This record gives sequence, C-alpha cells and structure tokens, in this order.
Amino acid sequence: MNNYSKPQRAGIVGFRGYSGSELVRLLRHHPRVEPVLLEHRKDFEERPQPLNALQPARVAFTHDVVKSEGLALVFLATPADVSMELAPELLSAGAKVVDLSGAFRFRDAATYSRWYKEQHTAPDLLREAVYGLPEFCRQLISGARLVANPGCYPTAANLAIQPLISSGVVDRGAGIVCDAKSGVSGAGRKVALSTSFCEVTANFSAYSVLDHRHVPEILMTSKLDECELSFTAHLLPIDRGILETIYFRARNVPSADSLLGIYSERYKNEPFIRLYPAGTLPDVRGVDRTNFCDIGVRFDSASGRTVVVTAIDNLVKGAAGQAIQNMNLMLGLEETEGLL
Amino acid sequence: MNNYSKPQRAGIVGFRGYSGSELVRLLRHHPRVEPVLLEHRKDFEERPQPLNALQPARVAFTHDVVKSEGLALVFLATPADVSMELAPELLSAGAKVVDLSGAFRFRDAATYSRWYKEQHTAPDLLREAVYGLPEFCRQLISGARLVANPGCYPTAANLAIQPLISSGVVDRGAGIVCDAKSGVSGAGRKVALSTSFCEVTANFSAYSVLDHRHVPEILMTSKLDECELSFTAHLLPIDRGILETIYFRARNVPSADSLLGIYSERYKNEPFIRLYPAGTLPDVRGVDRTNFCDIGVRFDSASGRTVVVTAIDNLVKGAAGQAIQNMNLMLGLEETEGLL
Amino acid sequence: MNNYSKPQRAGIVGFRGYSGSELVRLLRHHPRVEPVLLEHRKDFEERPQPLNALQPARVAFTHDVVKSEGLALVFLATPADVSMELAPELLSAGAKVVDLSGAFRFRDAATYSRWYKEQHTAPDLLREAVYGLPEFCRQLISGARLVANPGCYPTAANLAIQPLISSGVVDRGAGIVCDAKSGVSGAGRKVALSTSFCEVTANFSAYSVLDHRHVPEILMTSKLDECELSFTAHLLPIDRGILETIYFRARNVPSADSLLGIYSERYKNEPFIRLYPAGTLPDVRGVDRTNFCDIGVRFDSASGRTVVVTAIDNLVKGAAGQAIQNMNLMLGLEETEGLL
Amino acid sequence: MNNYSKPQRAGIVGFRGYSGSELVRLLRHHPRVEPVLLEHRKDFEERPQPLNALQPARVAFTHDVVKSEGLALVFLATPADVSMELAPELLSAGAKVVDLSGAFRFRDAATYSRWYKEQHTAPDLLREAVYGLPEFCRQLISGARLVANPGCYPTAANLAIQPLISSGVVDRGAGIVCDAKSGVSGAGRKVALSTSFCEVTANFSAYSVLDHRHVPEILMTSKLDECELSFTAHLLPIDRGILETIYFRARNVPSADSLLGIYSERYKNEPFIRLYPAGTLPDVRGVDRTNFCDIGVRFDSASGRTVVVTAIDNLVKGAAGQAIQNMNLMLGLEETEGLL
Repeated sequence: MNNYSKPQRAGIVGFRGYSGSELVRLLRHHPRVEPVLLEHRKDFEERPQPLNALQPARVAFTHDVVKSEGLALVFLATPADVSMELAPELLSAGAKVVDLSGAFRFRDAATYSRWYKEQHTAPDLLREAVYGLPEFCRQLISGARLVANPGCYPTAANLAIQPLISSGVVDRGAGIVCDAKSGVSGAGRKVALSTSFCEVTANFSAYSVLDHRHVPEILMTSKLDECELSFTAHLLPIDRGILETIYFRARNVPSADSLLGIYSERYKNEPFIRLYPAGTLPDVRGVDRTNFCDIGVRFDSASGRTVVVTAIDNLVKGAAGQAIQNMNLMLGLEETEGLL
Repeated sequence: MNNYSKPQRAGIVGFRGYSGSELVRLLRHHPRVEPVLLEHRKDFEERPQPLNALQPARVAFTHDVVKSEGLALVFLATPADVSMELAPELLSAGAKVVDLSGAFRFRDAATYSRWYKEQHTAPDLLREAVYGLPEFCRQLISGARLVANPGCYPTAANLAIQPLISSGVVDRGAGIVCDAKSGVSGAGRKVALSTSFCEVTANFSAYSVLDHRHVPEILMTSKLDECELSFTAHLLPIDRGILETIYFRARNVPSADSLLGIYSERYKNEPFIRLYPAGTLPDVRGVDRTNFCDIGVRFDSASGRTVVVTAIDNLVKGAAGQAIQNMNLMLGLEETEGLL
Repeated sequence: MNNYSKPQRAGIVGFRGYSGSELVRLLRHHPRVEPVLLEHRKDFEERPQPLNALQPARVAFTHDVVKSEGLALVFLATPADVSMELAPELLSAGAKVVDLSGAFRFRDAATYSRWYKEQHTAPDLLREAVYGLPEFCRQLISGARLVANPGCYPTAANLAIQPLISSGVVDRGAGIVCDAKSGVSGAGRKVALSTSFCEVTANFSAYSVLDHRHVPEILMTSKLDECELSFTAHLLPIDRGILETIYFRARNVPSADSLLGIYSERYKNEPFIRLYPAGTLPDVRGVDRTNFCDIGVRFDSASGRTVVVTAIDNLVKGAAGQAIQNMNLMLGLEETEGLL
Repeated sequence: MNNYSKPQRAGIVGFRGYSGSELVRLLRHHPRVEPVLLEHRKDFEERPQPLNALQPARVAFTHDVVKSEGLALVFLATPADVSMELAPELLSAGAKVVDLSGAFRFRDAATYSRWYKEQHTAPDLLREAVYGLPEFCRQLISGARLVANPGCYPTAANLAIQPLISSGVVDRGAGIVCDAKSGVSGAGRKVALSTSFCEVTANFSAYSVLDHRHVPEILMTSKLDECELSFTAHLLPIDRGILETIYFRARNVPSADSLLGIYSERYKNEPFIRLYPAGTLPDVRGVDRTNFCDIGVRFDSASGRTVVVTAIDNLVKGAAGQAIQNMNLMLGLEETEGLL
C-alpha cells in the first residue's frame, strides 16, 4: 500500500485474529514501520479464513527469520500459552517483543496461575517484562525488551481510576464499582455459540461478575485492594468499543470541575487522553477506530456520589493501537506516529 | 382476529406509540378483554404513520364514548400532560384508568414538579391513585379506580432491591449502585436525532446520570434515601429490553443462596418473578416479549460484595404487560390472563 | 404453562435448534396439542446449551416411546441425515411425521443427491411423502402420514411466483429473478465463523448464487425450468425474517391491480396470505413472529417490468409455524389453531 | 491533527451531515489539502448537534471568504436546492466546486425536474458541469470548474454494468435487474421516523421500486434504455455500505473468467477497482471505510444467466471519497492522495 520503503520492520504473529488484523491495518499507515506477517505452526490447522490481500506469511520464527526479515520487534497477538512459548525464542533472537496476551502482565507466576487457571511456562521473564500502559510507565517501556500490553478493560479502568485514587479524593471504605461493557470482538475470533450472531443480537448480558481475570491488572495499577473493587463485564451487541461506568464517593471535593482538574493536571501532556467538560460524557462512537481514551465526570456535591464514564476502542487503545504506542516508545520513534 | 365476542372492552389512547401498540398486540390475545382504539384530538396533527390492519379509532372520549363503547377501563399510553387532562374526564365518565405516564406515580405534586419540570394539573387525583406494582400493592390495585403504571427502570429496580432492603441485609451506609441499560423503545416513538439509527447503532452511551426522573420511584418503593442510591441509565443498541446491574455490600449473609432465599420466600407465589440459581444470571433475551422479571445473584462472602442482575422487557413488564396485569386485578380477572 | 390438559401430544426432535425451539414456543400456546421433547442419542454429545425451563426430554424413540407418550405426531427439526434415519422408525411405530429438513421434499432420490451432495438413505418414503405447502397441497397433506415441510426461501418464492406463472402473465422467455435475503437463524444453530456476531454485524453478503439447494423446490412447485430462474441468497444482519424481491416482465396486464387481482382470486380463502394494496409493499418487521406471508406488487405498464416483494418470518411460516399448520391439517384440527 | 501546514485549502459546506463529516475525516489525513468548515446561513436554525472538536466554521461565503480563506475548491455536501444557490456564487468567486447533491448530474433541466420534482434554478451551469466518475470521465474532470459527484447507487451500478454493456456481451432484450441494498446513512442525517432505530433494526424493506431518482444516472452512463433496467433500492439495518446484485443474460461468453477478463482489461490501471477471482464474491465489510469498488461474477454457462455482485462504502466511494478523488484530479494532485 506504501510504495516507498520504510526504515524498520515489525513482525505480527496472530494476524488473523481481531487484534492482529487491527495491527496490520494500523501499521500499513505507519510512516516508519513495515508489518511482516508471521505464521505460527499451529495456525496451519486452525486458521479460519484467509484475510484479503495479505502478503504471504513467513512460516516459523527461528533466529534465522528474525535476522533475514530484519525484525526490530515482534507483536504477539496470540493466546497466552503461545506467547509464553514464543517470547523467549524471539528475545534470544534479538527482537523486542510486545505481547498482547495476559502472559506477562503480572510480577509473579502465582497471580497468573490464580486468574488464568494454568501454570506459567516462562516465569523467568516476569521480572523483566514491563506493563505497557504508557501514561503510567513511559520511561520503563522506552528501555524495555519485553512489554506486556494491558488488557482492554484495565486500560480504560486504570486511566480513569488511578489519578483519583492517588490524589486521595476517593472514599475507599465505601468501595468502587466498575460496571464495564464491551463489544464482541473483545472475545477474540475463535468460534463459539456465545458469540454467534443470533445469540448476541438484540441481547445484553453480564459475565465474569466479580471474578474477571482483568481484575488483578486493575488492582495492580490502581493500588486498590480486591475487596474495595466490584468489577462486572457485560457483552454489548456491537463489534467494537468499551464503555465503563465507575461509581464511588468523593471526599473534600466541591465540584465536578475539581475532579476534572485532577485529570487535566495529571494528563496535561498526554496525546491520547481527552477530557469531556462538566455536563457532557463520552460514548463509544466518539472513540471508534481511534487510540483515544475519553473521560467524563458527573458529581453530586451534596452526597459526594461520583460517576466517571470512560470510553475506548477495545481493538485500538485496548489492544493494537496501544501496542503500536508501546512499539513507538521501544524503537525511539515519536509516540503518536501512525496513531493520529 | 378473534371471532368470538369477549365479555369486556378496554380503551387504548396512544395506540400508535410503542407501549400503546404493545397493548394492542397483547390484548388481541387476551381471552376476556377486547381492545378499543381511541384517538386523542391532538393525534390528528402529530401522528406519524398508521398501524397496519388496525380497526378505525373512535375519536374523542366524552361520557358518550365511554358509554357507547361500554368501556370498563381505559389505558392512557400518553405523555404526562395528556394523561393529566384525560384521567379526570374518563373517571367521571365511569371508566377505570391505568395510566402509563409518570403523571400519577407520586403522592404529592411537588415531587412531580421537581422531577418532571412542570406543574401538576390534576393534583386532586394524586391521593387516590395507586402505584401499580402488583407484587407490592396487589390489594390496593384490586380496589382502585386509577392506577399509575410504574416506570420501566423502577419496575426492575424495585423488584430486585426492595426485598433485600426490607430484610436488612444491605449495608446502606456504603450505598447502592444501580447501573441500568435499556433498549431504544424506552424513549418512545417520537422522532429525534438521538434515537436515529445511525446515531444508535454500534454505539453505547450513558444518560441522565444521577438525575433520571425514575429515581424518585425507586426511592419511594425501596425506602432508600436519595444519597444512598446512585442510578445511571444507558442506551443499548437494541429495540427492547432492560438489564440492571445492582451493587451493594451485604451483612450477615453467608452465601448467594441466602440472598436467593430472601427472594424465593418473598416471591414464592408470584407468577412473574423468576429466580436464577446461584452461578447463573439472567439476560435480556430470556425475557423478550414476556411479562417476567428475572433475577440472579453473585456474592463474594469474604467481602460481602454483592451483584444482583435483573432483566425485564421494557415494553411488557416495564409497560404494557404490567398495565394488563393491573387491569386484570382491577376488573376482578385472573391476574395472569393473557400474559402467559 | 397451561393448567388444563390438552387432548393430543406431539414430539419434537431437535428442540435445541432455532426451528425446534420455535416449535416449542408455538406449541406451548396451542390449545389442543401438547409438546413432548425428544432427545436424539447424538444430542448428548453435541448439544450446545440447555434451554431455560424446559421439561426433561425423553431419550430415544422406539415404538415404546411413541406409545408410552401417546404421540400422534412427531416433528423432526433435525439435519437431513437424522431425519432419514428416524422417519421410518417413527412411522412404523404409528406416529405421523412432519420433517423440517430437506430429506423428503423431492419425488426422487437423484434430485436429492444432486443438490444435497449425499445419498438418500430412505428412498422408499419419497413416493409417500407430501410437500407441505398448505396453500397448494391442502388435500394431500390432510391425508398424509409423512409431510416434508418446505424450505424457508421456497415458501415465500412459491407463494409469490406460482399464481402468476399459472395464470400465464409472466414472460418466461425473459427469465425470472428472485433476489432473496434472510436473517441469520436460517443457517441453524450450529457454530461457524461465518455466522459469528463480528462477521455478520454491519455486513451484508450474497451466497449460494445460482446454486442454492432450495432452487429445485421452487422449480418443482412453480413449474419453471432451471434456466428460467436466477435465484440468489443473501445474509442480512438480523436474526429472523426473509424478504424476496422478484423481477419479471408481465404480458397483457394493464396495471398493478390486475396482478393483485390474480393473487386475491387465488388466495381469497387463505388465512395466512396478506396482500398489500398497490403503492405499498411489505417489510420484514410486518411478519415478525407471525405465520403470515405478505405480498406486494409494483408494475410499470409501459414496459411490463414487474417487481413482487414478499416477506415471511423464516422461523414461522418458513419453518415451525408452517409445520404446525401442517400438523393441524394432518390431525384434523382447525388449520389456524395456535397460529393467529 | 496535522501540525505542519498544507499547501492548499478546500471548503466544506454541509459538514454536519454524514457525507460532509466524512469529508472532514478524510481531509484531515490528506497530506496536501486542509479542510475549512463553511457554515451556510440556514444551518444556524436547523443544525442538529455540534461535531466534536471541530474548528469554528466560517459563516457565509461571499467572494471575500473564498479569497480570505484562500479556497482552491469548495465541496457542497448540501441538498440540491442549496447547491443550486451556492455553486454559481462560489464559481464566480474563483473557487472550483465539487457538488455532492443531484443538482448538476444531468445534461438538461428537464431530466432533473422529472426525477427531483422541482425546477432547476441554475440551468446555465448544466452544460459546463462534468459528471464525476473518474474511471469514465477522468480527462474532463481534470479540466473542470464544476463537478457533479455521482450518486452512491449509480457509482456501484455503472462501474459494474457499463464495461459489460459496452463490450456487447449483455442480452439487453431480456433486461437487466439491479437489486441494490444500502445502509441508512444513505438517507442523510435529517431526522425521520423511517430512519429511527426502532423502525430500522431487525427490519429490511424495499423502497423507490422502479422509480428511484438515481435511475437516470445509471441510464445516462450505461447507455441503457429505461425499459431495459429494473432498479430497486432496499434499506439495510447497517449504518454504511452498499451491495448491488445485478442479473442479466450473457451471450457468446464461455465462462466467468471471460467476464472477469472484460473488467480486468477495462480497469487494469484503476487504483480503486478490485476484482474478485471466480468463485468468490465481495461483501460490504470488505470495502468499509475505503474508496474501493469491489466486483465479483457468477455465471452459468448452460443458460448464460449471470450475476454480478458489487460493493462500495456509500460514504466513501459513494460520496466523500469519490469527491476527494475528483478534487485531486481538479487540483492536479495524485489521484489516490489521502485515499489509500
């Protein structure tokens, strides 16, 4: 699609999935990094359908492939077990890695095992891996070899919750509720009755109530205790987009503007955070196919009851877009390159 | 559609709206009550489109019409201002009235004025009007001339919240969150950009955050104080159905089954309440085109965090179905007639 | 759901599929026939999810089951291969059979093999089986033991095309185009990427262009030759409903009303055919959850160009509703019983 | 969004509508042309809602505005009557004009009056205006001051039909059927019950059967006679995208590949036409948010029956994208600039 050659190349494993094909779509318009499709062996049996107009994928990824293709970095848009298998090989071959699965998001293997119900097979990398939320860990990401791209729900939740928690305005004793709703692509491209058209359309349902495996990511970043947070996920009859409605009591806050002021101070230099003025709230369509996280606030001064509404596109800021934001930092490029 | 004659007749004003046309649909299958379409004068100018295959509507409704049509009861599926104008006339003509607007839901005109931003023009009827939630006010409804059919959101909210509040298991100090989501027909059939297809599809948004005019109905029935309840409405890209996710802390409760036990004791003889066993939750599709209110519970015993999920069809249990349930009681019929 | 006992009982095999569960839904409201759920052995391994509130299914269906359950008739809402296996057993046990698959729709095994790409394993029953389109074969259906319920597309197509062909107004030399569009439930409840939510929503596509296996049913009933008919199926992003747009040239016809006159003469006593007056056309929503087939016509008198638009609910008139219409005839009941 | 200054500027009138806001979205990423929002006086009263983050619009557009803003070209994404009023003023002020309405698509005022049911108020410009389908009129567009951007349906129809007609393979005596389906944004952003969410979702309907005002554009370009073409439009429950299924009989053609060969010869240098190999067909999702027109063919050699399926995004190749393609030609830029 671009007829000039780009200076660097990045591999994509899992390019047939929804996050992976979004990576392909976004990188095609990236001015400095060329996507290279990498086929994992397993995919030969399982792959559902060819994507239109993709260049042929390179099979396997030994040291030779990383070198012959000149890969500065590889994106793993793969299930956690595949990521745990491939990440060590790719790192030892000299490529940096951004992993979009849950494999490297925690400091310790025990947390992973508790929430993902399986053993961690590459625990040595957990100490090295950096949690890839640029608004909070930009410095570490810039120097990292391995970045764990955050989950979609925690990206929106942490960007909305953390500044308020750290500023001390939240009455933590009363608890925080995060009522999260996501489009269906969040479940990935694997085939299941629960994500078939006839089951999802004209329907709406809650799932993983109080025990979603994204909860520990929110606790980790926001510094909340598990008993302080009630998180529920819901399935929206739309293909992409997340909206989270967050409830808590604020203390010592005179107005919605004071809360917005905390955000605007914290995010004043952030290119991908947009604040809605008091009286207005973001929606899913406003962030569609963008890397923005939109935030709005509603506040009742008499009681301190506060509602924060935040929206992202789960496939962009919640997956592929944030992965490219991380790649830009890791390769020393402009952070917004290819994302505005 | 029925070629035998039914013993009684009920009028429907506002039969072109979504609640009104649902009344027509349901009454056609009712074995004992025949629907009669009544045209309000104003409708001549405003009406959008004829409904297919409707019998011609009778215009106006003086004493003569109530008598000539032999109307035992009239449904007002009209805006509140029209209901306040028509209810007194119909009552004085000898018809009972079920009003689906917000006009007669409160005990006093001041509450109405605060939330509906207009004067009440028939305040004398407020003392007589009965709030039509049969599960809580069956006796009064049976003897009433004028019943105020509850709002859609409060129907689901009160059926889920009230039994727990009255049993004393809710830690009210920590507050209750009710995160409510509704299909678009809840906004009625009037034309607006905000409910046009291109604005709603593939979108999801919050509205009336903390100040929805259904809030006072929830407070009134559940006996909560305003500062204890955080209620937010959201617009789902579906045409009908409501799901509400309710959060609070429970005290002195060992398990989800204890909470379900409170409901099953309270609702043991209720034909339209269905409880989901622990570990399962209702969804919108499960109540589609039914008069059921489905309820499920998720509970964390370590922290007391509790999530109740409840679903109704906003046009049936949230409007027309419940109105017929009330009619059945007011006319001395079997309560479930025409609704199962 | 009904507290009086019904005089007769009908079994349903395949009650977990979309057509099967629609049969359950409709029969629950049928005043004379009680549904009995029958579990095919295979279903134990394959079944996707329990339906809510179903009574336990009876396993297997030998002579004993037909007798012990007192089954007058059994619906087979099963794949063709299962229908070919079960129909002979059930008939020999004394039950009548309505089969919703394609197994018994043709007179000869060769036609079946050509379009369904497999051998027919119960060819002896093909001579006995009656094609279950009541508007054309009412007499034969009333006396039949085995009825082949028509496909969804052919039901709408034949009801729209056959009267015009047989009246001689169609210029067959110029050909007939049937551009058909269906909701996703037409593909059944089996899980596939092509019917997953993210692939179908916000999309629209053609499939089985010129070689859909419903074509021979249209040819058989309308008496068209294969080269005269161009039939294309399309997948709509809705769960249920079919609309077909049919194009041809009419000869010796002065107006749309003349064409409508052919229909109104042919269908004057038909309870499930509704004609739209000239200038208006049916849509999918108008037949939602009904057993109606709606028909409208647009005609250009200068050129003879004619467009007929017809709509049905693929799960009702296109499957379960028509199956019950057939059952009513086979059991000597009122044809519309349970369907209006 | 771009912090470098672009060499040229183009005005957009009607930027609040769906085509207009798509123009804004696309031009923001155009490397050489900067969008300038122009407010028509009328919009002050009628405008529905502000777009997020738009720069303030310049009011009115006299000679002064065209000069002060340095506008090389103005897009009119306005109703035909507004376009007829503004186009002469803008041209006389020295700006080139691309009009997205139907105002300037025909050679003569009579054709306009017949199909648009109103007088043409700027008939003098009809001789000068160039029909903006670049694949057929590239040379003329490059030299034009005023370009009439084609309608969405005719864009897809003509790209699919014209090469086959002009090659002589179509049996015109038997007629051509174009069964067209469009997403709701094709109806524009004005508010109407017929495009409200509850009326469109889970529905599908035909409209403008045989008398759509886009018909004369198809006749004009394809050189068909009115009696040879049967065109029907349908409303899809999606927001954007068009798919057209075209039927005819082919003569002297051995295979689908022969038909594809006609297209590949005709379109071999076209950057926005993509052909699908025999056995595959395009769908709406494949062209979503792109300027491509995808074409596939299905052919029955025994009878000559042929089906061509073509898909475009009605807001891109069917409106704003094609308008920018025209602008690129008119301003001497690379034709694909900002569109790949």
